[in-house]
Amino acid sequence: MAIINNNYRKLSAGYLFPEIARRAKTYQDAHPGSMLHKLGIGNTTEPLPESILAGLHEKVDRLGKADTYTGYGDEQGDTPLREALAAYYKDMGIDISPDEFFVSDGAKADAANIQSLFDENNVVAIQDPAYPVYVDSNVVSGRTGRFDKNQGKYGGFVYLAGTEENGFFPTPPEGKVDLIYLCSPNNPTGAVATHEQLQAFVDYARNHKAVIIFDAAYAEYISDDSLPKSIFAIPGARECAIEINSFSKFAGFTGVRLGWTIVPKQLSAEDSKPGELHAMWFRRQVTFFNGASNIAQAGGLAVLSKQGLAQSRAIIQYYMENARIIREGLQSAGLTVYGGDNAPYVWVKTPQGMNSWEFFDQLLNQCQVIVTPGSGFGSAGEHYIRVSAFGHRDNIQAAVQSIQNNLVFSKE
Amino acid sequence: MAIINNNYRKLSAGYLFPEIARRAKTYQDAHPGSMLHKLGIGNTTEPLPESILAGLHEKVDRLGKADTYTGYGDEQGDTPLREALAAYYKDMGIDISPDEFFVSDGAKADAANIQSLFDENNVVAIQDPAYPVYVDSNVVSGRTGRFDKNQGKYGGFVYLAGTEENGFFPTPPEGKVDLIYLCSPNNPTGAVATHEQLQAFVDYARNHKAVIIFDAAYAEYISDDSLPKSIFAIPGARECAIEINSFSKFAGFTGVRLGWTIVPKQLSAEDSKPGELHAMWFRRQVTFFNGASNIAQAGGLAVLSKQGLAQSRAIIQYYMENARIIREGLQSAGLTVYGGDNAPYVWVKTPQGMNSWEFFDQLLNQCQVIVTPGSGFGSAGEHYIRVSAFGHRDNIQAAVQSIQNNLVFSKE
Repeated sequence: MAIINNNYRKLSAGYLFPEIARRAKTYQDAHPGSMLHKLGIGNTTEPLPESILAGLHEKVDRLGKADTYTGYGDEQGDTPLREALAAYYKDMGIDISPDEFFVSDGAKADAANIQSLFDENNVVAIQDPAYPVYVDSNVVSGRTGRFDKNQGKYGGFVYLAGTEENGFFPTPPEGKVDLIYLCSPNNPTGAVATHEQLQAFVDYARNHKAVIIFDAAYAEYISDDSLPKSIFAIPGARECAIEINSFSKFAGFTGVRLGWTIVPKQLSAEDSKPGELHAMWFRRQVTFFNGASNIAQAGGLAVLSKQGLAQSRAIIQYYMENARIIREGLQSAGLTVYGGDNAPYVWVKTPQGMNSWEFFDQLLNQCQVIVTPGSGFGSAGEHYIRVSAFGHRDNIQAAVQSIQNNLVFSKE
Repeated sequence: MAIINNNYRKLSAGYLFPEIARRAKTYQDAHPGSMLHKLGIGNTTEPLPESILAGLHEKVDRLGKADTYTGYGDEQGDTPLREALAAYYKDMGIDISPDEFFVSDGAKADAANIQSLFDENNVVAIQDPAYPVYVDSNVVSGRTGRFDKNQGKYGGFVYLAGTEENGFFPTPPEGKVDLIYLCSPNNPTGAVATHEQLQAFVDYARNHKAVIIFDAAYAEYISDDSLPKSIFAIPGARECAIEINSFSKFAGFTGVRLGWTIVPKQLSAEDSKPGELHAMWFRRQVTFFNGASNIAQAGGLAVLSKQGLAQSRAIIQYYMENARIIREGLQSAGLTVYGGDNAPYVWVKTPQGMNSWEFFDQLLNQCQVIVTPGSGFGSAGEHYIRVSAFGHRDNIQAAVQSIQNNLVFSKE
């Protein structure tokens, strides 16, 4: 008599984005012919540049010839790609050995699966608001109690709130936790941790033998050189941190699928020696994964070439100009905005104490603009919305214009 | 104080193929300039055919243009691909709805992850010998005791032995089990279950509310039309079975990465209604996965076109001719062989009661041929080796020739 994993039943409601899509469809069904400005999902929109297309085409050609066809690659990724990733970090002044990189099919899978290396009884600390995957993967793996609808929280998690007061980046917890998920530049708030803020977490983790899982998927959007692009820019991080990153937002690979995770050899947990977690992740990938697509990996190698980096960064600049337009446009419409200077997300406070979904509905109905309700990322996201800078310029301008022209604040 | 998932420490030794690679390297280091004939790993070797290359190139071109670029796709796979998969099954006389297909990056990940839908306390039955992923994924997820070195078995599993007597396909267990992994055509034995054999498992599963996880990754290698290519050819299977399949061996996508899993809506477990496991796998994929590479999916769509199917099946015929050469060549060398008629693997009994690794070493040292020791797939694989038919024709012929010329049976 097969019994299901009952933890799935703890998951609170549906995933955020399907609910947004449902409300958008309801609006469009009621208003046939209406055009919606979509600033919701953080999905890349600009075509791949020439040098990366060339890398992809070349690999396809190689798969068509007997002397260059290849089948299974190494589960941890092709050696030239891992060497190129090491060189990319070296350019940031960070030494990571090629065999500390594990190439994957994207940050989401790694962010969801990394918890499987740890015992069910570890206490998990999560930034609030946060990308839902950190929360959901730990819920279905049994590390929480039930979801408390009134609090908007799961029993068992330690929530680290990002607030206006702390600039949306929390300080380490007071009590003892075992696993800490951090995301900087942050999705959804757009906040970026300073060296000092990350150092405080690294110090905490080393003192408590905790492990930091650091999601750096938006690192390439940091323009302020004083801000760290990697947890490994912080002394001591190699003993206590894992970094997850991706080509999705870096190079428009949201659909092509490619990412990487760094598990340093010095990393240890309470009951393991340095090297064991590195070996465990290798064993995990060899058992549960068969390598990222070899075509995607060839594309990743092209991204990391001199020309590929320049062309990818030009597209990032394009999105960051969108972010500036959103930030300044929404400010001039009378809204309070955060983020959007070193991240492709603008974090907007709802006016007059509206809750996130109320303001979502108002923007949909008054301005035909789709955003993401902040409460979908956790209870500390309540009273905020996330506006994504991914989009064609004319759509971004039209959306901002529509908010400026049509948003009416109700009288108090 | 982070605590690791201690189940990883239960895993018996390293993964099979790294150990084979290690012994091959030791031999080559001791015999510089020697050429090894590799019939070990089941890795495709023939280039992709024209129609599939065209599908891949076209998708890359589309990613380079503003009006055809796409980012994130649906986690469950592109609709046209799921519709094409439904049509592919329809041609076999099997009705599966497009929304019962979940496109993945390959059968290995799905075969490893599917257990996460079920409670830790389910009793797992495994074919012995079996592809190591079914075993290892359940070990690290806590469904077994320790590995017993003397028996070559984990405590807690129910092993269903494939033997000469049962034609290498077992009958359902005597006692009660909850999850049953079946692979037909079987890796490593090359045995294919008949309708009657699968019907017995479906009847067992329905009587005991067990769930069958059916790996059909080699279905396209079945040439005997009387043998079932899908568990869903068996009446009642939609209530008790999940099927996992792949483009890897079907179309040379071992490196490109693409597969699919079918979770029928009628499927239920003891404590769930029909539809819940389907919804859970959807939720699992939305949370832990972000879709297969869109380039690979375009390739998969090309595989399922009329021309793509014809060209892919021509390559399968090529490998099956290799299998015939191996089967007949090894028979004429005095060995007892099984499989290789509806599967790309030939299952060879070791001579004179040698164990698998002894015969592996003998073939390496005497004939410079690399095979896979049967014991690496479970204790019932002891006294067998697996010979893979994936390879260029001249390498296959040279390997068989070398065995015929150089293999010396030691005197009793």
